[in-house]
Amino acid sequence: MKLTKKTNILIVGLGLMGGSYAIALKKKGYHVTCITRSQSSVDYALEQGIIDYGTTEVDPSLVGEADLVVFSLYPRVFLDWIERYQQYLKPGAVLTDVTGVKTSVVYRVQELLRPDVEFVAAHPMAGREVYGVRNSAGVKVDEANYIVTPTDKNTPEAVALIKQLGEELGYARVSELSPEDHDEIVAFVSQLAHCLAVVLMTCNDLQNLENYTGNSFRDLTRIAHINEDMWSELFLMNREALLRQMDLFRAQFDRLRGQLAVGDVEAMKDMMRQSTVRRDAFDKVK
Amino acid sequence: MKLTKKTNILIVGLGLMGGSYAIALKKKGYHVTCITRSQSSVDYALEQGIIDYGTTEVDPSLVGEADLVVFSLYPRVFLDWIERYQQYLKPGAVLTDVTGVKTSVVYRVQELLRPDVEFVAAHPMAGREVYGVRNSAGVKVDEANYIVTPTDKNTPEAVALIKQLGEELGYARVSELSPEDHDEIVAFVSQLAHCLAVVLMTCNDLQNLENYTGNSFRDLTRIAHINEDMWSELFLMNREALLRQMDLFRAQFDRLRGQLAVGDVEAMKDMMRQSTVRRDAFDKVK
Repeated sequence: MKLTKKTNILIVGLGLMGGSYAIALKKKGYHVTCITRSQSSVDYALEQGIIDYGTTEVDPSLVGEADLVVFSLYPRVFLDWIERYQQYLKPGAVLTDVTGVKTSVVYRVQELLRPDVEFVAAHPMAGREVYGVRNSAGVKVDEANYIVTPTDKNTPEAVALIKQLGEELGYARVSELSPEDHDEIVAFVSQLAHCLAVVLMTCNDLQNLENYTGNSFRDLTRIAHINEDMWSELFLMNREALLRQMDLFRAQFDRLRGQLAVGDVEAMKDMMRQSTVRRDAFDKVK
Repeated sequence: MKLTKKTNILIVGLGLMGGSYAIALKKKGYHVTCITRSQSSVDYALEQGIIDYGTTEVDPSLVGEADLVVFSLYPRVFLDWIERYQQYLKPGAVLTDVTGVKTSVVYRVQELLRPDVEFVAAHPMAGREVYGVRNSAGVKVDEANYIVTPTDKNTPEAVALIKQLGEELGYARVSELSPEDHDEIVAFVSQLAHCLAVVLMTCNDLQNLENYTGNSFRDLTRIAHINEDMWSELFLMNREALLRQMDLFRAQFDRLRGQLAVGDVEAMKDMMRQSTVRRDAFDKVK
C-alpha cells in the first residue's frame, strides 16, 4: 500500500499535532477526515479547509472507510479507543500515532489489535509549548525529525507507508528506531530536557527575574510552560528510562559541582570542551 | 557628567561585547577609540568604521584622553590592567565594564583605584555563544537587560552616566542591583543555565542524537557550545553563589525524581503548573 490521492485518511484527535497533519496532507490534495472531542475544533478545521469532513462522534461508517488512521491522542486515551472501537476499522487499514512514548504503547496496541489491521508507531518530533488545532499552523517540520518505531509484528509495506507519510508531511529527517531505543533517547533529549526546565523554573524564589535574564535562560525555559496532563502521563509511561537518564544527569551534575567546589579548573574546562564538541555536531545537521 | 558627542570613549578589549559597544556608539556619532590585544581586530574595526582609532599598545596619551573607559576583558585581566596602568587615566575619568560577575571584581577594583577616577560596574546581558569583534554585529540588545551595580563609593552622577550609556546602547531594560544581588541572580539565570547545558551535553554516550532531537533540546543546549576559559573563570569568581544555586536546583531535581519514582502524579502536575505560571511572567515582558 502506498499513499495516493485515493487514500482515505482519518485523523483521530484534532489537536496541535493532528491538526498539523491535516494541514499538510490537505495541502497536498489528500482526502482527510477527523474525529475529535470538540465541535469547535471541527468547525474551525472546516472553515480553514484543512479537513473534508469531521465529527465528534465515533461514527462506524467513517472509521470503516479509512485506509490510514492517525491517532493523535494522549497515550491512555489512545489505548482506550482501540479497545472500544477497533471493531469498526476497515480490514487492511494501517494505523499510526504521534505519541511521545513507544514501548508502553506499541506492544500493548499491537497485542490488542485485530490481526487484519496493522499499527506502525511514529513520533513526529515537532511539538510546541502551546496546543490545539488553532496553533497547528505554527508546527515547524522542516528542521524536525520523524521517527518510526517498527516491531516484529510489522510488515515492510506498512512501515514504508508510514515513512512515506513522514516525507509527505515534510519532516527533515525520517528515521527508524526500536521502541526501546526510541524511549531511551526521548527520555534524554525530550523528557529530561523538560524536567530540567521545570526544575529550573521552580527551584528558588528569586523575584522579578524577567528584568535580569539573558537569552540563554529564556531559551532554556521556553518549555517550562508545560502541559501538565500530557507530560506527567508521558513521564510515567516512560518511567524507567527517564529515571535512568535523570540519574546519569545527576551524576554528571555532581561531578561538575565537585570540580567547582574544589576549584579544579582543568576538569571544568575538559567538561566544557567535550560539551562544545558534542554540541557542534548538532549545528552541522541543522 | 553626561555623554555628549564630545565625550572621548575608550574601549579596552575589542572582543564580542567591546565590539558591540563600538558599533552602537559609533553609529550614534560618538568618538570611539580602542586598545586591544590583536592587530587584526584593530584593522577589522577600522575597516568597518566602528572605531576612530585603535592600537595594541597601552598608549599613555590615548588612555589619558579618555573621559569614559569601557573594560571588556576577562575578570583577572581587568584587575591586572588596573594595577599596571591606572596611573595613565585622566583625572575625573569614569570607568565601567561588561564583566559577568560583580562582587569579586567591583570592590577589588574600587579599592585599587586612584581616588580621582570612578568605577561604576555594569553587566550587559547580551552575550552570545560565539566571540570576537567579527561576531559583534550579531549581539542583540533590543530585548536584553543591562544591569548597573553601584556601591557606596559611587556618585549619583557617575551612576547616571553609566545608565545613560546602557540606554544609548539600546538595551531594552536598564536596572540597578547591588553587586551581591547581581551575583546571586546571575548565578541562577546565567551560570546555572550554562552548567545545565554542559552537564546535559556530556552526561551520557548516546550516539547520533542530532537525528532524534526536537527543538527543545537544541534550544536548551545552544549554550553548551561554551568558551571554557571565560566560563570556568566566571564560575570560580562567583563560586559561593553558584554552589548555592546548584544546591537549590539539585534539591528540586531530587524532589521531581522522587515524585516520578513513586508515581505521585499530582505532585508532578503541581510543580509543572507552578513552572508554567512563572514562565509566563517572562513572555509578558518580552
